Amino acid sequence: MVKLVEYDDASPEVRAVYEDIARTRGIDPRDVNNAWKAQAIHPKNMARFWERAKTIMAPGALDHVTKELIYLAVSISQQCEYCIASHTHQARKKGASEAQLAEMFAIVGLAVEGNRMASAYRIPVDPMFDE
Amino acid sequence: MVKLVEYDDASPEVRAVYEDIARTRGIDPRDVNNAWKAQAIHPKNMARFWERAKTIMAPGALDHVTKELIYLAVSISQQCEYCIASHTHQARKKGASEAQLAEMFAIVGLAVEGNRMASAYRIPVDPMFDE
Amino acid sequence: MVKLVEYDDASPEVRAVYEDIARTRGIDPRDVNNAWKAQAIHPKNMARFWERAKTIMAPGALDHVTKELIYLAVSISQQCEYCIASHTHQARKKGASEAQLAEMFAIVGLAVEGNRMASAYRIPVDPMFDE
Amino acid sequence: MVKLVEYDDASPEVRAVYEDIARTRGIDPRDVNNAWKAQAIHPKNMARFWERAKTIMAPGALDHVTKELIYLAVSISQQCEYCIASHTHQARKKGASEAQLAEMFAIVGLAVEGNRMASAYRIPVDPMFDE
Amino acid sequence: MVKLVEYDDASPEVRAVYEDIARTRGIDPRDVNNAWKAQAIHPKNMARFWERAKTIMAPGALDHVTKELIYLAVSISQQCEYCIASHTHQARKKGASEAQLAEMFAIVGLAVEGNRMASAYRIPVDPMFDE
Amino acid sequence: MVKLVEYDDASPEVRAVYEDIARTRGIDPRDVNNAWKAQAIHPKNMARFWERAKTIMAPGALDHVTKELIYLAVSISQQCEYCIASHTHQARKKGASEAQLAEMFAIVGLAVEGNRMASAYRIPVDPMFDE
Repeated sequence: MVKLVEYDDASPEVRAVYEDIARTRGIDPRDVNNAWKAQAIHPKNMARFWERAKTIMAPGALDHVTKELIYLAVSISQQCEYCIASHTHQARKKGASEAQLAEMFAIVGLAVEGNRMASAYRIPVDPMFDE
Repeated sequence: MVKLVEYDDASPEVRAVYEDIARTRGIDPRDVNNAWKAQAIHPKNMARFWERAKTIMAPGALDHVTKELIYLAVSISQQCEYCIASHTHQARKKGASEAQLAEMFAIVGLAVEGNRMASAYRIPVDPMFDE
Repeated sequence: MVKLVEYDDASPEVRAVYEDIARTRGIDPRDVNNAWKAQAIHPKNMARFWERAKTIMAPGALDHVTKELIYLAVSISQQCEYCIASHTHQARKKGASEAQLAEMFAIVGLAVEGNRMASAYRIPVDPMFDE
Repeated sequence: MVKLVEYDDASPEVRAVYEDIARTRGIDPRDVNNAWKAQAIHPKNMARFWERAKTIMAPGALDHVTKELIYLAVSISQQCEYCIASHTHQARKKGASEAQLAEMFAIVGLAVEGNRMASAYRIPVDPMFDE
Repeated sequence: MVKLVEYDDASPEVRAVYEDIARTRGIDPRDVNNAWKAQAIHPKNMARFWERAKTIMAPGALDHVTKELIYLAVSISQQCEYCIASHTHQARKKGASEAQLAEMFAIVGLAVEGNRMASAYRIPVDPMFDE
Repeated sequence: MVKLVEYDDASPEVRAVYEDIARTRGIDPRDVNNAWKAQAIHPKNMARFWERAKTIMAPGALDHVTKELIYLAVSISQQCEYCIASHTHQARKKGASEAQLAEMFAIVGLAVEGNRMASAYRIPVDPMFDE
């Protein structure tokens, strides 16, 4: 099995990240999800990824749910099993409805097909799109 | 050059699709973008894709701008040049701000990296995500 | 511009590959397509790729057109502009009809969507598929 | 576990789709594969995808086996585990031989490499391919 | 379960490949990894892939560890679970350190994001890159 | 054309990033490549990406050339035209030889095929890889 670093076995550097994740999400530092427990074998990479995620996923010009839907849509288009499982959970937890998920799924399916048709037909970019 | 079928040279079947696109978007049927003029060599495929796009991209549980941002996010994650050019144009036309585009771009970048890290570390799905 | 190695400027090693491609395709060795003229800066890689392509694309349990359609379908799903341009040309030259191309395009679009839905819904493999 | 909607627990809307799938495939509506039982939580999306799949995968200018081989080739190039499991099963059931599968697998491998080499060498499209 | 062909049940053609793999890696032919035992149902494809892998992965202008790191980096960017599991094992066995793996993981994450940003911003190639 | 922000037209925030890039690379701040001039319309994203790139691409457990080869290998596997053009240039500038590039290209081609075969044959992970 892949080694998961539990809070109680973690170095101070790793614990500090688990604690910040826990604070941000209002959970116990022992309950951070496996994405962090697995990345902990490379603490610097994990810390850098967490800092970035915390900044980028915070509500701004786009709200919490929209940000989760976009993250999930990308993860579906890239076919990442873990990311789909964790961000579907996050999206629902943050208030995404089944109707919103269904519409997003349909857009992802339409877009991945549209992307291939643009290539298949070698569609030239319209001048108006470059104005 | 790839053959683009102009409205004036199009068959009645193709014209009908151009006209419905034009009606839906409030433009002239001669001004549909190249995505349609290129797909027109296979009218049945084009008609089926348009019908689906019209249904899926109409506002519902998700609004116009959110749908465009999701379509564009997927197109960026799949690296489709034409789709990025046309849907960036659409998103701005429908009211997406630079701040919203910037935040979405950052989420796409974060997600494509997160997707690879989930694979690199072979992260097992947390039981809570399957409840 | 990327450097293209023309037959008249090529080393004997490269010329030998151009000549075998020309023989196989019934063309002049000066008319091999750019895929070869560009790869020629790394003769060993080019020679190895050509040997493999010649063997794999020769008619066998699958005929010429079916093989070209499969190669093209993969290239569309991977969104490779050059490969789509060259293999659409090859497929038509070998006898693929517009109706066959249209049906293949539709299958590619359906499959890339189906692939994402399998991920989005995290569909478990049916036991019968493992028998 | 992901929720699978069984026929006996399904809404009339979902049952109607299961029954049409069963009719088309000559099976019992309780035996539709998991791809449908999982998508059933979003009935409209499932119904739309089934309608399209039924139309596109029906024999036409391309026969049953060729269509399955193309769908499977795309699924392999996109690395979709469920789709590969289900369509390998379908392809064999519809008559694809091991020799045909082996040749298709080799073409997929050749194409995904050829696609990258076209990018690595930045190969310009030959003018003849645009005629 | 997918059928794995064990050495003792293998045809002479398959055994010969297992033996060459074993010789090259200094292991017992009964201990080749599943990648070979699964591909063995198509002996010609397996033999061709092994011949190529043996040649390409042998130390040359790039050493053993660098070659494994590149193979693994590509497998992570393509999100191939089996390949990541087997080549992470290979890389460590050949001497890659955790620090080297951590730096490579970070480069993969940076590159997959950089790749999308190049598409998102539709960045034109600088003339100097074509000199 | 996509808008490129030149140094002389840039805001102080953007100029500061151009100057740090220029310092790091020993060039004039007016000569940063298009990747930066295009991303400059979203200064915060550009600054964050540059900070990360500077840290990750600096020599450490892996040297300059190896890091560039890995970045380029990922960009080829993801088929990013701009990234391939710019990082091929960088790799040669930092001392990568044609022989090293040729071997890396061959590994990328082998890996993208190997990745698909792992999926096509649904190869189960060997227990030893989880130890």
